[in-house]
Amino acid sequence: MEYHDSEKATEVAGRVEDFMEEVVLPREREALATGEKITMDEIEDFWDQAKERDLFAPQVPEEYGGQGLDFSDMLPSFEQVGRSLIGALAIRANAPQEGNMHTLEMVGTEKQKEEWLRPLVQGDIQTAFAMTEPKQGGGSDPKMLQSTAVKDGDEWVINAHKWWTSDGMDADYYLLMARTDLDAHPYEGTSIIMVPREADGVEVVRNVPHLGGHGITEREGGHAEMKFDNVRVPVENTIGEENAGFEIAQMRLGGGRLTHCMRYSGMAERSLEVAKAYLSEREAFGSTLEEKQALRHRIADAETRLHAARCMVRHAARELDRSDARIEVAMAKMFTANVTNEAIDLALQCCGGNGIGKDLPIAHFYENVRSFRIVDGADEVHRRSIARWAFEDIDETEVENALQFDEDLRIDELDG
Amino acid sequence: MEYHDSEKATEVAGRVEDFMEEVVLPREREALATGEKITMDEIEDFWDQAKERDLFAPQVPEEYGGQGLDFSDMLPSFEQVGRSLIGALAIRANAPQEGNMHTLEMVGTEKQKEEWLRPLVQGDIQTAFAMTEPKQGGGSDPKMLQSTAVKDGDEWVINAHKWWTSDGMDADYYLLMARTDLDAHPYEGTSIIMVPREADGVEVVRNVPHLGGHGITEREGGHAEMKFDNVRVPVENTIGEENAGFEIAQMRLGGGRLTHCMRYSGMAERSLEVAKAYLSEREAFGSTLEEKQALRHRIADAETRLHAARCMVRHAARELDRSDARIEVAMAKMFTANVTNEAIDLALQCCGGNGIGKDLPIAHFYENVRSFRIVDGADEVHRRSIARWAFEDIDETEVENALQFDEDLRIDELDG
Amino acid sequence: MEYHDSEKATEVAGRVEDFMEEVVLPREREALATGEKITMDEIEDFWDQAKERDLFAPQVPEEYGGQGLDFSDMLPSFEQVGRSLIGALAIRANAPQEGNMHTLEMVGTEKQKEEWLRPLVQGDIQTAFAMTEPKQGGGSDPKMLQSTAVKDGDEWVINAHKWWTSDGMDADYYLLMARTDLDAHPYEGTSIIMVPREADGVEVVRNVPHLGGHGITEREGGHAEMKFDNVRVPVENTIGEENAGFEIAQMRLGGGRLTHCMRYSGMAERSLEVAKAYLSEREAFGSTLEEKQALRHRIADAETRLHAARCMVRHAARELDRSDARIEVAMAKMFTANVTNEAIDLALQCCGGNGIGKDLPIAHFYENVRSFRIVDGADEVHRRSIARWAFEDIDETEVENALQFDEDLRIDELDG
Amino acid sequence: MEYHDSEKATEVAGRVEDFMEEVVLPREREALATGEKITMDEIEDFWDQAKERDLFAPQVPEEYGGQGLDFSDMLPSFEQVGRSLIGALAIRANAPQEGNMHTLEMVGTEKQKEEWLRPLVQGDIQTAFAMTEPKQGGGSDPKMLQSTAVKDGDEWVINAHKWWTSDGMDADYYLLMARTDLDAHPYEGTSIIMVPREADGVEVVRNVPHLGGHGITEREGGHAEMKFDNVRVPVENTIGEENAGFEIAQMRLGGGRLTHCMRYSGMAERSLEVAKAYLSEREAFGSTLEEKQALRHRIADAETRLHAARCMVRHAARELDRSDARIEVAMAKMFTANVTNEAIDLALQCCGGNGIGKDLPIAHFYENVRSFRIVDGADEVHRRSIARWAFEDIDETEVENALQFDEDLRIDELDG
Repeated sequence: MEYHDSEKATEVAGRVEDFMEEVVLPREREALATGEKITMDEIEDFWDQAKERDLFAPQVPEEYGGQGLDFSDMLPSFEQVGRSLIGALAIRANAPQEGNMHTLEMVGTEKQKEEWLRPLVQGDIQTAFAMTEPKQGGGSDPKMLQSTAVKDGDEWVINAHKWWTSDGMDADYYLLMARTDLDAHPYEGTSIIMVPREADGVEVVRNVPHLGGHGITEREGGHAEMKFDNVRVPVENTIGEENAGFEIAQMRLGGGRLTHCMRYSGMAERSLEVAKAYLSEREAFGSTLEEKQALRHRIADAETRLHAARCMVRHAARELDRSDARIEVAMAKMFTANVTNEAIDLALQCCGGNGIGKDLPIAHFYENVRSFRIVDGADEVHRRSIARWAFEDIDETEVENALQFDEDLRIDELDG
Repeated sequence: MEYHDSEKATEVAGRVEDFMEEVVLPREREALATGEKITMDEIEDFWDQAKERDLFAPQVPEEYGGQGLDFSDMLPSFEQVGRSLIGALAIRANAPQEGNMHTLEMVGTEKQKEEWLRPLVQGDIQTAFAMTEPKQGGGSDPKMLQSTAVKDGDEWVINAHKWWTSDGMDADYYLLMARTDLDAHPYEGTSIIMVPREADGVEVVRNVPHLGGHGITEREGGHAEMKFDNVRVPVENTIGEENAGFEIAQMRLGGGRLTHCMRYSGMAERSLEVAKAYLSEREAFGSTLEEKQALRHRIADAETRLHAARCMVRHAARELDRSDARIEVAMAKMFTANVTNEAIDLALQCCGGNGIGKDLPIAHFYENVRSFRIVDGADEVHRRSIARWAFEDIDETEVENALQFDEDLRIDELDG
Repeated sequence: MEYHDSEKATEVAGRVEDFMEEVVLPREREALATGEKITMDEIEDFWDQAKERDLFAPQVPEEYGGQGLDFSDMLPSFEQVGRSLIGALAIRANAPQEGNMHTLEMVGTEKQKEEWLRPLVQGDIQTAFAMTEPKQGGGSDPKMLQSTAVKDGDEWVINAHKWWTSDGMDADYYLLMARTDLDAHPYEGTSIIMVPREADGVEVVRNVPHLGGHGITEREGGHAEMKFDNVRVPVENTIGEENAGFEIAQMRLGGGRLTHCMRYSGMAERSLEVAKAYLSEREAFGSTLEEKQALRHRIADAETRLHAARCMVRHAARELDRSDARIEVAMAKMFTANVTNEAIDLALQCCGGNGIGKDLPIAHFYENVRSFRIVDGADEVHRRSIARWAFEDIDETEVENALQFDEDLRIDELDG
Repeated sequence: MEYHDSEKATEVAGRVEDFMEEVVLPREREALATGEKITMDEIEDFWDQAKERDLFAPQVPEEYGGQGLDFSDMLPSFEQVGRSLIGALAIRANAPQEGNMHTLEMVGTEKQKEEWLRPLVQGDIQTAFAMTEPKQGGGSDPKMLQSTAVKDGDEWVINAHKWWTSDGMDADYYLLMARTDLDAHPYEGTSIIMVPREADGVEVVRNVPHLGGHGITEREGGHAEMKFDNVRVPVENTIGEENAGFEIAQMRLGGGRLTHCMRYSGMAERSLEVAKAYLSEREAFGSTLEEKQALRHRIADAETRLHAARCMVRHAARELDRSDARIEVAMAKMFTANVTNEAIDLALQCCGGNGIGKDLPIAHFYENVRSFRIVDGADEVHRRSIARWAFEDIDETEVENALQFDEDLRIDELDG
């Protein structure tokens, strides 16, 4: 399928595809077959190879070690890496690290970029974005944020309870969201503060047990529950403007939603590829499963919806490169989250017992993709935004027209 | 929603939108409210106004009286006209007339264009495309075509039984598909022949009674059942190359599928507008229906899927302007057909009794849109093509990988 | 499929099935093929035959001329009559007449039964239930009822504006709902009053134009818009207790919802039968459509869901024969409404152009069934009731358990 | 919801419900909260308590230590145990053990019952049913069975490669299906043979890694890959008639499908209970989530479909207690598998991050229920059977009627 991506986008994505086919997917298949985890040494070796092939960190400006692509142009590369359980990690385009890079690049000071962005891109440090809280409506309603950072001289004194802090088990630094102006509405009174793990009072409580999370690499990642008890960090650790935390988080999330869409589209596409390969060889009731029309037609539907998602995500990326694209991104995210869940569910079903089994990647994908309908805005939260937009602009002429059929008999006439 | 259409496309569509709001929709609402049919005089007056506003027949080259837009550029205008039951008719962009114009323009001789295309664009004659036959697998399998045209001197002698010939009740000419080389496979031995209604042996049997078909204009249109009994027409009435009928029909259908998508997208959008207007004013159980979250969320879903369809159709139009875009069009058509059916069904449900009632346009749309999942290739036919494409290119590495888990125990070992 | 219906139920249903196969369906097919309407004489002849076969009005007590079956026992007979466009009419089990019979039988005085029930059963008079009003939230919210009946001596003086009064075009009598105690909540202050059409001030405004409504009998039926302007009827025309209108309407509706389910189940089943017959003979791409697995599997799904509906409706009928079964009926109605819509939509799709066409009954069914998701409580109204029931009885232990994971950090600690 | 179960069924189910609420669910919640596995000692203690409460092994005849209930009567008890991750295990009604008990009871000799059934019921031995093979079309097509057992004197010599042998990691005995008459069609030439794990040549290759499988008890269970290399067992270990293996497996599976439906219905119900409890307390955007209508309505839909499933399963159980009920069971199984998957998916979504997390049971249920659409006949296999049944009995009158509209013009007339 030709998507009319730019020449540069296509060219980098071609290199990424080769890297996946030649290096990453073979290693993934081996790890699944043997059950042996991929080591950090191997991952670092992937990074070296990715640099040699000029495809490392496509989303990062060239001066900080990446390929300098905007959302539209990174898109086909991100689709490619999504095809493997370790693809995004292998080129350093994995969430939440890439979103944190994006955040630092957008609003960090030069000093912060040198201190944190540069090593983060290189993989010398790991970060986590500590936003969601146990008491906070499942994370959907940001107004319920309870963490606080109070200024004491040139230090923040932070008290917070966070969970679902992705990659939090391994992180060296936390981009922590806390209320910094308790008198203001949270939207206007929250800041993002960089907290080193080694600071006094930082406690990694546990890896919240969850669906999936049985990766094929040594790295734990995980979704951490964290406590921050009177943790002190310099005020200069504030990322971006003080009290602008929500605005920055929204910018981070807008892009993050789309890069998730890209990677998950690749994951769904790979699932269908595996399913089709499987169907083409397995036989039952006198023919290969590939020839069973019912499955063929359902695959045709899945391919069609996935194509729809990829068209939408491209549209939203184009728009995000020049505006905030809030509704475009919300629609693309919600639609893609559902479409990729369905496609992977179908692929699993096509493979029967082997779909449930973890010799193939599909069951891993299945565990993984379920959270996509919840994180970065649950479906319900996006529907809420889209509905508000949809009802913003009621056509008054249609209202009048609709009402005329009800209006011609008045209540007072009735009583007459 | 900003779709990044070209400047020209946007500019013409703006004029079309104004025409709809100012002239066409008010007249439609009046016709629905009073039950009085719109006359042919009124329609011709629409055409005059459309010409004055430089938006008549956007799909036709300027030299033949239109606006000369390619598929990408006519798209937003066609979405606009789809919003009204009489929108496409009002600017002479209605199916099947516009598809017939496209056909004549693509493959007609200069003489044919002067004789038929020019008056057809102006509305001085009506045409119909007579393809589907009663015995032909519901029209889905073109190989089963049975109509014949046998050469006798410089005349074709035509025998045919057709039905579902759209606009066939009113047509002055029929673009009739018949086998012209009985020894060849139908794909290589079928021609399109222009047959005047007044020719001897042409019989309009009946308007096939069908869902919908209760229009708001005087014009009957209809889906005709037709018999052609030893009808004689000059061989020079052949449209395009002799025996190239299927190829031409495919070209006609590719574009026709997309223009249908555009118009039906507009119809779905209008339905949602009417529903939202209705919900914003009607009350039940203590608040307006607009405030009922369950309906809001379903509208958000419908808007999202409609947006997906519009992105896909744009992609397919872009591709069709430079290639045959067979799969892109098949996907866009099947997806849009389903999405618009669902959106209109939802809009109807939102309006309750008024949704079923015909004071509002939604019930008309509901009747109308159902056929879109059948005409121009039923969903099942498109799924068949898409599936064939999807299975064309099985990844052999995935096959090997999938099979390794089954291969290690051979049947001969079992017998050992 | 064996449903374990009672011996009596099975036995009457067997007779009904024979009547359908031998008499009613052949006449229906003829009417569709020729377009000639079935006359009232013919319908009266059906009634005579139905009486001879001991299957007339199964839902009516024997003393009033019927077969005396309760909901469980009339069920399979009602499924049978639903298979034909004129089946219910042919045995006098058609809505809304049968619901009106049920109402009169439940709460009518002996005098009312003699005067109205007996001739109504025989078809000597027609009735309509005038409840829905233009201003009344689409009919979903009964509290918004605005019609009034004020006592003046031994007469009611009625002022009302009604619409969607089914069979209202033909009715001789209207069971009209009006507020009779304006100080009371409508639930406690509304009565049902029998209004003869010939009374002064009764105006049949129009047949509300609507989806469907193109029947195959002479009888118009229709959904009437009605005005009642200072109409006077004797107070003894009150049906049931004064001010008990809502309670009676609920009893009427509970049964009416289920009998609708029964008839529409039969309609869906017939649609699938027609579709399967069609698929078994039509060919495309080298085999009959019956052999296309994708269609077969979708039919299997439709049959399965229809079976689910029939099991649910039986459960609800069993429960309704001994309780008010409010939630059971709501679930059965909403589920059946959706399942039958989907089954008929699938049957239509299976028949392609012939599905849209009205030579077969499917397009008629398609028009007809759409309203079932709206009348007798729109889906949304039933979901509302079901949700209220579902949330009535929250498990406190689960609440405590769910909350424990959020509770261990208090806001005051955070502020500390 | 009142399901009109028998008095005995209701009475035992009441005891089971109390046991769940008082003993089993509290222990489950504790295990989830702490992550500490439930020990075998604890499970044996559950068994003791279940015996004291007269609810142990409801499906087993009293003479072998159970409650002697048929399918209809065990149903509400099995729904109850499905509500907990360890419910079925706690009363010894867990698959595949209960299916194996059923098999032994149906066709075992008295000696076999004493030797294996009695201790199996008591939990002194564990069994597994070794049917599925790697090369066998995913298990769907039994004709592809390749395992063999060849008679050598009074011993079977067995060679087999099996996988997805549930509970195979822990089993003491395997009910192994192997071809015993290689000249016969597998349906007529396959036997079930009891193979002790300790026999020479039995190898437990691995626990096939799979979705789920992270239980909360010490017992591994698992889905084993097994090899049987020239394993010798006495011919008297044949379970049931020689070469009647498929017939027996079908009997086992028919019941097994239904008991799965019962347990999974309970699981879905519990998931909804947990979700409702959660929604009733969590807040976002100014109200509890319970008050968000969109979620309420989706829960209403899920409750409705689950109710439909429970009605169908009851119908099928009633039928299975007196016939083979093949289609009834296929429909109930396919429908319930999908409905329970959807309900659990919704419950997970309702709980947001806590749905993905494993502090609550929902994520466990989610992993667990996915296989239900594959095991005991994948959806596609059941659709295949149902479709065959649906097309068995085409209505010839409908065929003739459907065709008449196509028939009136013959091909020879066309050629004329």
